[in-house]
This record gives sequence, structure tokens and C-alpha cells, in this order.
Amino acid sequence: MVELTNNKTRWIPLMRRALQLAALGEVNASPNPLVGAIVLSAEGTLVGEGFHFMPGQPHAEINALDQAGNESKGGTLVVTLEPCCHYGRTPPCTEAIISAGISKVIVALKDPDPRVSGQGIVRLKEAGIEVELGVLEKEAAYQNRAFIFRITTGRPWGILKWAMSLDGRICLPNGASKWISSPKAREWVHCLRSKCDAIIVGGQTVRKDNPLLTSRGLCSPEPFRVVFSEKCEFSKKEIIWNTEVAKTFLAYGPSCKERAENLNFLIGPDLLPLPNSTPSSLLEALALKGCNKVLWECGPSLSSIAIQEGCVQELAVVIAPKLLGGLSANTPLSNFGLTSIDQALSIENIGLDSIDKDLLIRGSLDIQKSDFFS
Amino acid sequence: MVELTNNKTRWIPLMRRALQLAALGEVNASPNPLVGAIVLSAEGTLVGEGFHFMPGQPHAEINALDQAGNESKGGTLVVTLEPCCHYGRTPPCTEAIISAGISKVIVALKDPDPRVSGQGIVRLKEAGIEVELGVLEKEAAYQNRAFIFRITTGRPWGILKWAMSLDGRICLPNGASKWISSPKAREWVHCLRSKCDAIIVGGQTVRKDNPLLTSRGLCSPEPFRVVFSEKCEFSKKEIIWNTEVAKTFLAYGPSCKERAENLNFLIGPDLLPLPNSTPSSLLEALALKGCNKVLWECGPSLSSIAIQEGCVQELAVVIAPKLLGGLSANTPLSNFGLTSIDQALSIENIGLDSIDKDLLIRGSLDIQKSDFFS
Repeated sequence: MVELTNNKTRWIPLMRRALQLAALGEVNASPNPLVGAIVLSAEGTLVGEGFHFMPGQPHAEINALDQAGNESKGGTLVVTLEPCCHYGRTPPCTEAIISAGISKVIVALKDPDPRVSGQGIVRLKEAGIEVELGVLEKEAAYQNRAFIFRITTGRPWGILKWAMSLDGRICLPNGASKWISSPKAREWVHCLRSKCDAIIVGGQTVRKDNPLLTSRGLCSPEPFRVVFSEKCEFSKKEIIWNTEVAKTFLAYGPSCKERAENLNFLIGPDLLPLPNSTPSSLLEALALKGCNKVLWECGPSLSSIAIQEGCVQELAVVIAPKLLGGLSANTPLSNFGLTSIDQALSIENIGLDSIDKDLLIRGSLDIQKSDFFS
Repeated sequence: MVELTNNKTRWIPLMRRALQLAALGEVNASPNPLVGAIVLSAEGTLVGEGFHFMPGQPHAEINALDQAGNESKGGTLVVTLEPCCHYGRTPPCTEAIISAGISKVIVALKDPDPRVSGQGIVRLKEAGIEVELGVLEKEAAYQNRAFIFRITTGRPWGILKWAMSLDGRICLPNGASKWISSPKAREWVHCLRSKCDAIIVGGQTVRKDNPLLTSRGLCSPEPFRVVFSEKCEFSKKEIIWNTEVAKTFLAYGPSCKERAENLNFLIGPDLLPLPNSTPSSLLEALALKGCNKVLWECGPSLSSIAIQEGCVQELAVVIAPKLLGGLSANTPLSNFGLTSIDQALSIENIGLDSIDKDLLIRGSLDIQKSDFFS
């Protein structure tokens, strides 16, 4: 964390606005980071605003500079992430900033991408531009936590979501689960999906619940749908194989190779063979496909393994004010093998909301902080 | 509900104060109702306040009139419950009000006790006192819901409490449950116990958790501890049999008679033989012992039966931000036999709080409103 001098605090309201602009890319920017930018003229007037909408489209800085036009000269650029200095699908932002005649750049966060990682700032300073780094750095890092996590670990950020009754049941003994949560809570889940790059379920959830797993059009294209299967036993009846709706992967380990390749009748899904039949292996494959953030919407067994392998960084639990009762398999997680309550995995940064009559509990988890799980 | 004329609304702030006074009796007033009273002089000055502290002690009206002394003459009495008109352990309040020269009485709620039930108001009116009924009637009924429930149904009001992890577990597969919730949440439970007249557990909870089940001195005497057992298999090691701490009952049905009577080594508990080994039968026996409100702190089986028999009117669920995983028996409720989510028992009037890092969810349930349960 960079120490803020008093002088830097004057940039906080503008950086907050830049973060709001960055958030507008939430649905489409992935695998790129979220970035927002503001240009002030030499006189301090706001003359340009921009954000990064989607890969291949101009970066936030370019959009803000374009809007500012000649007013950029001698002005200040406020940007949530260090400007890039490499040629990707678009030319480096550093060069555009220099040509526009910007004299000062305020940056929230150094870009963790190894192709940038401080070099953008060096380039700007070499060109005689004053640079201040670290304004709302923590907030900017939180906003781009999925991108940063993928860049630094090689795996997408994982969110595990489940809906349960107040007595901790995700379905009835006969498997019925439609619907535990309210229509409004399900709309919230669609919205959450739209901000993720892939939705992951196990084969059993497909067979049992026959889910559609889309955002219902809240984003286009829809997030990837990923069926992670240990058995590869499916039928045409499962609506997920209609891949006109969303790109769909059938992921499996080596032991399932033959069975997966024999599912000829499923013309829709792309096969995604994995070196191991593990959540980690799946996530590494999805990171290579550009996924920053995945949503686990799976049953107890896969959820538990995903947690144990450190594939879940965030929880989103919808609790419906209902009592269902039931048997063992109808709970959100299966057995971790704990023998003492001290070993329990802690959920931090609890956030609490209500959606219609349901409650939404969000929190973060980090198995590295646990003696038992890590 | 009595319609309020505009004239009556002027009494609302004073009645709210009277309800606050009534709440001061929460720990000790049972089996009597909570009552608070205020006396205004003829000039409208507040000259007396009182509440009912405990059975055998003066009623709220008497305390307020005593404090007001001669200033009561021509004054107004604001009281949360209809003044009594019968001789109980103390003389009727109506007569004291009349002798004090009160000229107007404002009442929130008619007393549902058949010995009063409107007769108190009739008596006051006969004596030429102006009476207004129905100011904050709903709030007063809510405050005395346990008393009213016992008077009208012959059973105490039941609260079911459990503490669970965010994945719906009340213990680990090996039975470990100490402690799922935080020290602050457990203090809250002690406070809840202090406002109840009896704490009920099953025999298995005693054998497995060996609980103390007191308010830790928040009330004196402590609430009754009731062990409701189907097996009556106990040992001296169980700390609950040290009945110096709190009056303790061992309740059982006819099939356990012999076994219960053979537990000679347990000198502490009072035997409470029941006509049937059911939660309803137990509650009827506890109502006769003056319990207005009981707290169920039992395991999944007994909790589920208590719910199904309509012995639970309120839920208090502590959710710890932890993941435990586990097997079937480790959930708050056992199987109700539902086959469709529509049959789920709804929890209404949800209240949400946080206690340290834990969440507290409270709500009410009424099996009469359910097609499946009622």
C-alpha cells in the first residue's frame, strides 16, 4: 500500500468517480481488467470520462482522452489502473497520454499484469509527466480482485452460490428444489451470473435439476456454461445441451475420455478434456479461455471439493425463510472430515442483504488462513 | 382492534412509555402479564410510574398510584392492560383506582384472562370513570403474546433456538458443537433464557452436550430446566442434575415410568410424569406450573416434532460465519416428509441482527397457516 500524502487526498472524489466508471465494464470487460478514467483540463475542468467496455475496444484512458480532445493539453488524467505500455489488441495507452499533452497522471493501482507492472508509470515519468500512485488503491484492487487473482494465480476467482432454507436444506429428500428462493432472489442470481465468465455445475446437477444456467439475457454473449462430469452420462432431454443459448463446455478427466467422446448425440457442447478430474485443473483450463471469474452452482460434493482445493474465494448464500427438514444429501456441503469446531473454515467480510423475503449473505474465504484446509 | 379516534392518538406517546415500563417485568412477572402504568395529575403532569415486577408484588397501577399519592385525584391513569377487578394475591386494581379519585383511564388492551375480560372496564365506568380502550393495542398484545397465548390455548408460547454454521450444521459428525457461535452470541442466548420460564431439551442433548442451561445468573430464580426423555438413561456425570442451580424437571411418558422412578441416584430433579410422551403434553403440564414462555434448545428430532405439534411460535437462529460440512444428523431439523417445496413451513416477521460476527435471524411460525402441517 502506497502512503497517501495530504496532497493526494484531493484526488479521492475523482478517483471514486473513475471507479464508478470502471464498474460499467463489469459485464463485458473480462478477461481484461475493469478500468475507468477521467481527464481534467489544465484549468481543472472535467473534460473527459471513459471506461473499458470490452476486449478489442479502446481502453478507458483513450475513451476519456478522445472525449477531452484538445482540452487534454496540460491537463490531468485520473485512472483506476496503471496505463499499459505494450502493444496488445490496441496500441499502448502511455503513448496516447504523452501525445495528448497530459502533464499529470493519478493512478489507483499498479497493473499486476507482468507486461505492465510499473513499466507504464516509468514510461510516463520518462516523458516528463508527473505521476501519483496509490489513490484509493485498496478499493481499486478490490474492484479488480478477479483479474488480479487470475493474473497472479493462473486460476479464475471463484464464487460459490447456493440457496437454502433456514434449516440448511438445498432440496427435499425427493430432490425437489424448485423453488426454495423467491423470484426476486433468482433474478439477483441471474444478475450475478452476468458478471461471471463461466457458470460451473456437476453432472448430477444437470441430470437432477436440468438447469438453464443463463443470465436470462442480462449479458451477451451469455457466460460459458461448464458441466464438470465424473460420469459423462447425459441425455438429449437436458436443456443445457442446446448451445444456441450459450457456449457450453463438457469438462472431464482422463478416465472419462472415451465416454465423453461417445456422446455424439450431444452436438452442442465443446469437449474440454482435463489432465486431472479436479476443480483446480478445470479452473486452470478456464483461465486459459480468458475467465476471470467463475460461479460454482453445483451440489454438495463438488462444492466441498472446490472449497478444499482453494477454488472458492467468495460465498453467496441465499437463505429463504422456510423450514424444509430432510436427510443428509440435501445440505449445501458434504463432509470435510473436521473433528473439532476450531478447524471450521471462517468466512470473513460478511455482507448482509435482504431480497424480497429472502436473505443474502456474502462473504470471503481463504483456505490459506486455515490450518485444516490449507 | 378498536378504532382510534383522533382524540385517542394524543395518548400514544404516554402509552409507549407505559409499554417500556411494562417491559421491565420481562424477567420476573410470569405467569402474570407484563403491565406498565403512568399517572397524570388533573393538570396533566406526570406524577406516577409503575410496572408489575413479580407475582405477589403490587400491580403496575398500584405502584403508579402510590407514587402519585394525592396528585391522582382528578387525574388520568394510562395502563397497558385492563385493570383487574378480582381478588387474586392482591386486591383488585379497579377499587384502588376508584378510591384514588382517578377520573380517566386509558387502556391499551382488554385482559384476555376470563376473570377480567372487560369486567374491569365495566367496573370503572360504573364508578363514573371515563375509559378509553385500544391505544397501542397491537403493540400491547405483541408484548404480552406469551401470556395471551397461554391464557387462550392452555400452553406456553414456544421459542425454538438453534445455532448453526452457514452451511446449516449444528455439530460435526463426531458430535462436537462447542462452540459454533461466538461468546457474544452465547451471552445473547443467556439473556433470552432469562426471559423464558423453562428451557427444554431432550435426553440425548443432555447425554451428548452435557449442558448447564442457565441464564448464568441473569435472572433469579433461574428458569426451570426440563429434560424431556424417551429413554430416561442418565448418569450422575450430567451437570444438569445439580439442581441447586435451577429447579429441574425430568419429564417422560407412561412407558418410561418405571425407568424414571428407578433413577434414585439423581436426587436433584423433580419427576414430571406426562399422560403422553408428546411436546404438547409437556407444554400443558408446564402451563399448569405457570410457564408463559418456554425455550426449546433441543436436537433435530425433538425440534421437528415440537414444530409439527404447534409447540413452536417463534424461531431464533444464530448463524456463525463458518463452514463445517458433515452428515445427516448434524442439521437443525429432521425429516418432515415434505414432497414439494410449496409445503414448506413459512417463517414470517423476519428480524435480522448481527451479534459480533454471528447473525441472528428471528421469525414467527404458525402451523395453522400451513396446509401440510396443520
